[in-house]
Amino acid sequence: MKLPLSIQELNSEHARLCLDIEKFGNLKSGTNFASQKLLIAVSGGIDSTALLIISTLLARKSGGRVFCAHMDHNLREESCQDREFVEKLCSNLDVPCVCKSEDVSDYAVNKSVGLEEAGRILRYNFFNECMKKFDTSFLVLAHHLGDLCEDVVMRLIRGAGWPALGGMDAYDPGRKLLRPLLTTNKLQLEDFLKSIDCPWQDDKSNFSDKWTRNRIRNHIIPLLHNENPSFGTSIARLKSQADQDQNYWNCEIAKSLKKLEQLDGGEWLAPCSLLNKSHPALRCRLFKKIIEMLGKGHALADSITLLENAYSARKTGAVFQFPAGKTATITRKGIVFKISQRY
Amino acid sequence: MKLPLSIQELNSEHARLCLDIEKFGNLKSGTNFASQKLLIAVSGGIDSTALLIISTLLARKSGGRVFCAHMDHNLREESCQDREFVEKLCSNLDVPCVCKSEDVSDYAVNKSVGLEEAGRILRYNFFNECMKKFDTSFLVLAHHLGDLCEDVVMRLIRGAGWPALGGMDAYDPGRKLLRPLLTTNKLQLEDFLKSIDCPWQDDKSNFSDKWTRNRIRNHIIPLLHNENPSFGTSIARLKSQADQDQNYWNCEIAKSLKKLEQLDGGEWLAPCSLLNKSHPALRCRLFKKIIEMLGKGHALADSITLLENAYSARKTGAVFQFPAGKTATITRKGIVFKISQRY
Repeated sequence: MKLPLSIQELNSEHARLCLDIEKFGNLKSGTNFASQKLLIAVSGGIDSTALLIISTLLARKSGGRVFCAHMDHNLREESCQDREFVEKLCSNLDVPCVCKSEDVSDYAVNKSVGLEEAGRILRYNFFNECMKKFDTSFLVLAHHLGDLCEDVVMRLIRGAGWPALGGMDAYDPGRKLLRPLLTTNKLQLEDFLKSIDCPWQDDKSNFSDKWTRNRIRNHIIPLLHNENPSFGTSIARLKSQADQDQNYWNCEIAKSLKKLEQLDGGEWLAPCSLLNKSHPALRCRLFKKIIEMLGKGHALADSITLLENAYSARKTGAVFQFPAGKTATITRKGIVFKISQRY
Repeated sequence: MKLPLSIQELNSEHARLCLDIEKFGNLKSGTNFASQKLLIAVSGGIDSTALLIISTLLARKSGGRVFCAHMDHNLREESCQDREFVEKLCSNLDVPCVCKSEDVSDYAVNKSVGLEEAGRILRYNFFNECMKKFDTSFLVLAHHLGDLCEDVVMRLIRGAGWPALGGMDAYDPGRKLLRPLLTTNKLQLEDFLKSIDCPWQDDKSNFSDKWTRNRIRNHIIPLLHNENPSFGTSIARLKSQADQDQNYWNCEIAKSLKKLEQLDGGEWLAPCSLLNKSHPALRCRLFKKIIEMLGKGHALADSITLLENAYSARKTGAVFQFPAGKTATITRKGIVFKISQRY
């Protein structure tokens, strides 16, 4: 395979695709990401193959450097072919590539987690090692608009609230994770690879109904698309509103956090003076944030609602338990949040 | 059929069901609705038959009065049997009943609207006539948790934003519309009717894939339930958060509206002093509200986003067109909203 060396070698449609992807990634990360060191996670499928080539072209244009990480999950017989494909592709692109083989089934059994979860843990452990090794600024993932649609449906099924319902983030600063293809159609990626005569590996496990994600992709999403062929566009718009609202609530929560009072023993008081002038919509989100700040373990939406209802009804003395030994106690001064020393 | 005369005659489970429905309706309407005059819309199916009986029992307890309205759509051969059933049921319950026959197909053809839309228009026209005739405080509708789930999926498909994505309202003060069954399971309603030996009419058109709503109900919802048997509970929780957020944004928008300046000729100025200290999440919702206030015709989310982006980029002089001759012009003082006199 003879791959393009620069964006100028692409036809105008695909040059535009690359530039749109760069623009989206820049907007979301707030920086010119392609001018930096990028670790691209590549399975060898359409999405990540296209991502690797597009990132390489953008980095050449903008002065960045691209590294590749590939993990063999050893869940399919043909997975070693994927590894060979990715190594060949990287050699062709002159991109340093690290591959690692993990026994995902074994890990899943030993740690009593599902196969999907085991794969996820091992994959991100490996990616994080690679990020340290190459000192990269971003872990770049190939999730596209189809993945975003599935994720929104998955979150709807599982009962996510707003704005989490809007789906996975294009940029996660904590994990330095960037998804520049998140509003790009998979068909555009396939079309791009075909136009430059670049092959890819097919993952047959994508068709198995063993995985929730596949059942959503293969059975539910087509029905939604049948009702509205622009379903993907609707979901991209929803995500954009979710990002805007997430930013809004982050700002409001940040203002409120400044008014918390730290008590002895790592306890926090959310004083009545703060809570009484806050709307329940803000209070519920603030409670969630404070409980997260205390340490690991998230509070369920229903538990937060119980706390909110009790506070609204001024149930002084009521104590609410949250995961990992965290509690919230309604007092005359406000709500005291703490974590038990046993945890 | 010999129907119960009071809640005391029900078993404890169904007495509890009736009281929970009353509590939910009171919470949402902010008043003891069952002590007032209620118009119940009854098709004769499970949901509305149960609603009519439950409303009657609640009204007897709380001092209200119940009236019934039934419209024959003439879309199915057996629809006159539904009318006979509803009339018999009302006579049994000692509830005044008004029935009307409409040629929905004819209206759809003449007005060039779809059959569903035609049915909806004629039905609500009829209900509004009945509300005037009986001077009722609420139009009570039988939408239940299953309907809410379908509505959320329908809105997701059609690209609704937040909080509209949370689904139809349990209470619409403008239309005096109340849906006290909105978080009740259809199975509970069926179980209730069976326990009091009350029959109902089956609507065979519920199984036809001709209607979007039926395709969602019969094909998409079962797949979502397969993934999470508590899908309904998740949707009820989402709706509750949507109501909370809707109330939040209504409060914020009301504060902002006080800062608009009325200009000559029915124009409104949203001054920079207001807009610059408002977050984009609030600004977009405020723009939408102002455009609605100018007169009929809603703005698309994408048009609102274009206006927001142009304002953020300070594109002074830019003019944006909205439906029904409405415009927004970015000026140095802020954004001027107006409606052309031709409309």
